[in-house]
Amino acid sequence: MTEHNRFNHQKYLPYTPVALKDRTWPDQVIEVAPRWCSVDLRDGNQALIEPMSVNQKKQMFDLLLEVGFKEIEVGFPAASQPDFDFVRYLIEEDRIPDDVTIQVLTQARPELIARTYESLKGARSAIVHVYNSTSVVQREKVFKTDKQGIIDIAVAGARVVKEHAEKAPETDWHFQYSPESFTGTEVDFAVDVCNAVIDVWQPTAEKKIIINLPATVEMATPNVFADQVEYFCRNVDRRDAVVVSLHTHNDRGCAVAAAELAVMAGADRVEGTMLGNGERTGNMDIVVMAMNMYSQGIDPTLDFSDMDKIVTVVKACTQIDVHPRQPYSGDLVFTAFSGSHQDAIKKCLDLYQEGSTWEIAYLPIDPRDLGRTYQDVIRVNSQSGKGGVAYVLQSKFGFNLPRWLQIDFSRVIQKEAETTGQEIAADKIWTLFKATYLHDQQSVTLDSFNFSKSGERETFKASLTCFEQTLDISGEGDGVMDAFVEAIKEATDIDFEIMEYGEHALGQGADAEAVTYIQLKNGLQRHTGVAISRDIVSSSLNALLRAASQLIEESRQRNAA
Amino acid sequence: MTEHNRFNHQKYLPYTPVALKDRTWPDQVIEVAPRWCSVDLRDGNQALIEPMSVNQKKQMFDLLLEVGFKEIEVGFPAASQPDFDFVRYLIEEDRIPDDVTIQVLTQARPELIARTYESLKGARSAIVHVYNSTSVVQREKVFKTDKQGIIDIAVAGARVVKEHAEKAPETDWHFQYSPESFTGTEVDFAVDVCNAVIDVWQPTAEKKIIINLPATVEMATPNVFADQVEYFCRNVDRRDAVVVSLHTHNDRGCAVAAAELAVMAGADRVEGTMLGNGERTGNMDIVVMAMNMYSQGIDPTLDFSDMDKIVTVVKACTQIDVHPRQPYSGDLVFTAFSGSHQDAIKKCLDLYQEGSTWEIAYLPIDPRDLGRTYQDVIRVNSQSGKGGVAYVLQSKFGFNLPRWLQIDFSRVIQKEAETTGQEIAADKIWTLFKATYLHDQQSVTLDSFNFSKSGERETFKASLTCFEQTLDISGEGDGVMDAFVEAIKEATDIDFEIMEYGEHALGQGADAEAVTYIQLKNGLQRHTGVAISRDIVSSSLNALLRAASQLIEESRQRNAA
Repeated sequence: MTEHNRFNHQKYLPYTPVALKDRTWPDQVIEVAPRWCSVDLRDGNQALIEPMSVNQKKQMFDLLLEVGFKEIEVGFPAASQPDFDFVRYLIEEDRIPDDVTIQVLTQARPELIARTYESLKGARSAIVHVYNSTSVVQREKVFKTDKQGIIDIAVAGARVVKEHAEKAPETDWHFQYSPESFTGTEVDFAVDVCNAVIDVWQPTAEKKIIINLPATVEMATPNVFADQVEYFCRNVDRRDAVVVSLHTHNDRGCAVAAAELAVMAGADRVEGTMLGNGERTGNMDIVVMAMNMYSQGIDPTLDFSDMDKIVTVVKACTQIDVHPRQPYSGDLVFTAFSGSHQDAIKKCLDLYQEGSTWEIAYLPIDPRDLGRTYQDVIRVNSQSGKGGVAYVLQSKFGFNLPRWLQIDFSRVIQKEAETTGQEIAADKIWTLFKATYLHDQQSVTLDSFNFSKSGERETFKASLTCFEQTLDISGEGDGVMDAFVEAIKEATDIDFEIMEYGEHALGQGADAEAVTYIQLKNGLQRHTGVAISRDIVSSSLNALLRAASQLIEESRQRNAA
Repeated sequence: MTEHNRFNHQKYLPYTPVALKDRTWPDQVIEVAPRWCSVDLRDGNQALIEPMSVNQKKQMFDLLLEVGFKEIEVGFPAASQPDFDFVRYLIEEDRIPDDVTIQVLTQARPELIARTYESLKGARSAIVHVYNSTSVVQREKVFKTDKQGIIDIAVAGARVVKEHAEKAPETDWHFQYSPESFTGTEVDFAVDVCNAVIDVWQPTAEKKIIINLPATVEMATPNVFADQVEYFCRNVDRRDAVVVSLHTHNDRGCAVAAAELAVMAGADRVEGTMLGNGERTGNMDIVVMAMNMYSQGIDPTLDFSDMDKIVTVVKACTQIDVHPRQPYSGDLVFTAFSGSHQDAIKKCLDLYQEGSTWEIAYLPIDPRDLGRTYQDVIRVNSQSGKGGVAYVLQSKFGFNLPRWLQIDFSRVIQKEAETTGQEIAADKIWTLFKATYLHDQQSVTLDSFNFSKSGERETFKASLTCFEQTLDISGEGDGVMDAFVEAIKEATDIDFEIMEYGEHALGQGADAEAVTYIQLKNGLQRHTGVAISRDIVSSSLNALLRAASQLIEESRQRNAA
């Protein structure tokens, strides 16, 4: 054996696409959800390191019903005793709702088909899904037969499927055929095989059969698969009597794209799993494809509103974690860490009217639709700017910071984030906010005040404690704040002016406190004061005094130096 | 505030695609890798719960160099002090190879651009990547400006970028502009904005600029993005002087598909991250897109042959696990649990000639190319059939089981798997194989033998220990096995014949032992014997005797009853 030559692309051949120059699918838009079929309990289950126990299968089956699946592939009963037993359990314990049809998979071999029907005895309705491999590599290397040999296997299997069904007319039988490894099969040969099966089954528009086209292995860009499906739909016999189904895998990371484009190309039905479990890279994630439609205003006919439950049950059944970035279901998929993203989201949410069309930057859907909260949307790290911090203070603590204060405070947060290198949780933001703006270490405090109005002017008198000494001040102005400023200026001989001022209620109702944000300017220096009070005047005066007290401190330090 | 109406698709509007009926991209096939740009250290880093430390950034940067990236976006220095410091470190410590260009991101604001150039001082070469948001929702809700206002921001930013570059001619500057949220922007307006920037920068075919089209949020099926990119390529000014770049996100699970189709539509360059880290659902996974090309015989220009190292470093830097089903990098992506898959893989691998074209069912690429072994490919659970078990015995223990014995032994394994509900590890398979076929509890053993040939006939004499008593037997036949069978039949009065026989060396060379597999038929009963010996005759005789001893035991039990 020669040495394996690591990382050499030359041993791979390019995929040969179907020649379909007059394709129409790129002009199509998906407007209606396809029929969905869950294969969580079959393709999903068979790909697990530890396949599901009976109890896990029951949990999964119940979840699939809850989400709204009407077609569920529940196993490969002829190949596995646990699968056989589970099918019997579903039927004997009457666990299948009237509007739900179970589906089981079998290879196109007479003894396996017989065993499959045995498992389904007494079912009200069932889809018997028979397959054989049709690809070039399987023909040449695995089955060592030619095209006719493959057609013979399919036809023989289809006949046996039909015969068994005729012997058990108490069940409403549906037939499904898959040319397995369709993507590795010449598309015109796939049509030939399927037409041979159709010829056996003789479907009608009233009693259709399902032809399922599996991308057993994803082998080309998704447009190539769409071309193949469009070609197939055009050339298959009795198109009106055939439900064209898809079953894509994710080897090239494009399982969702392939299914979407192939639905545009004419497919009626899509198989997949919830959160994308399945052989190797997994089956197509039906949650993603369905939610993609949902985000375009299309009824997906499945309900994912309790996403946390879906994630919990799927994880418990598969023992595989959901990736934090898995679209729609991952923990981080609605989270913005970037400052500019946070800022834009906050501005859009501020303008959003409940019930109106969803138009929020960076959020393709409303996380609340999936049972997630906005709390998760904006998280703060050293890459975040003012928007995220402001959003957290507003949504969690009710503080609606004016822009100038957002900028001021975001420097505090960024410094903390850069120092610790970690995410800054909401509670930490609040602690830093209090420590920065609402601390008690104030050199100048307001003990009592009095103001009176005479004509246009207001007179303001107050008693302060200033560096542990009582200081009585008074001033006049156009209003109470103006008069207070004048009084402080006169008493301290420090010149300053109010640059920014904002106030709002914290919470609602008569009992709500007020918060005031003030910024003073003294030369190039700016000082910020924040205060909370039940009384809007006290709140304003205290905010002013907090800012002014910093000025006074600095002035004393300068004079002392 | 009215109650939020959970799971109502009606609040979403369908995306409006660009009207491009004469698209040409669906007829294209990717034949050459695009220019790659890693944004692991910028978009990837900013989306982490805990952004990378300086040490982690160094590790990531070294890995990106090792993989072969020639363009690396290393941060957003004007927005983050750690990013600024890291850029300084790379330049001052001379960490950037001559053939690698670093790229930094900045918003189109003069003070941020100035700070950006400050971070790049002394760089040999750098890409200054400037952006502003151009989408409808950002114009209306975030920036509250019209189209001209957005163009003005872009043009002003482009001018400042150019001015700074002119002031520092010691660096080889490259310019990149992104109409951020391109997918939310009317495509003709995106062209207008970019043309305005191009008009400022005046690129030439010799000194190109990069226009990067971000799917900041993935908003439609990937064909729509490809249409937009083809439209853009047709309508942008000075196409020969512009490198059209892509930057896709994965909100709809189609980031790879969107980038692939858009490269078919004319794009020259692709931004993404390794393993798909990035805001929300992540950036496009460059490993997947590049490996997709590799699997088609295209040189990806990046080297992923040490995938384990890539996974280890990326996990250490991002603190995010790689999903076991992430294409190419996940733990389970080359694993087949299904029996029929295992069987097909085994048959294809048996036929595979080292160095020839790779055509193996269910394995789009050779796992060894990424440093993975075949050991991981086939794992056995209760859903597995004979192929997997046979593969494990062959690849790990050297036993090349004939098909009839694969079937026989797979029943043993399946029963064990169904009983325990767990994966059957290779060592467990070996233990079960020994217990079933190579155990010591044998009622009949061979003590000595002698055979002689006379003419066409061979005479065989042996001394057995049969249920603790010595039994001398003799027989004649066409060969030693045939004579031995006759001797046993005569001594025991049991009729049987050899149905299956196989033998091969275990290992290579003169010292190798031989293993013999035999199946006897007695009426409807079949009995299997396996034996190992340095001597091929002893091996065969012992295998026969193991099978025969089961026959003899059963016969004694019947007679006793």
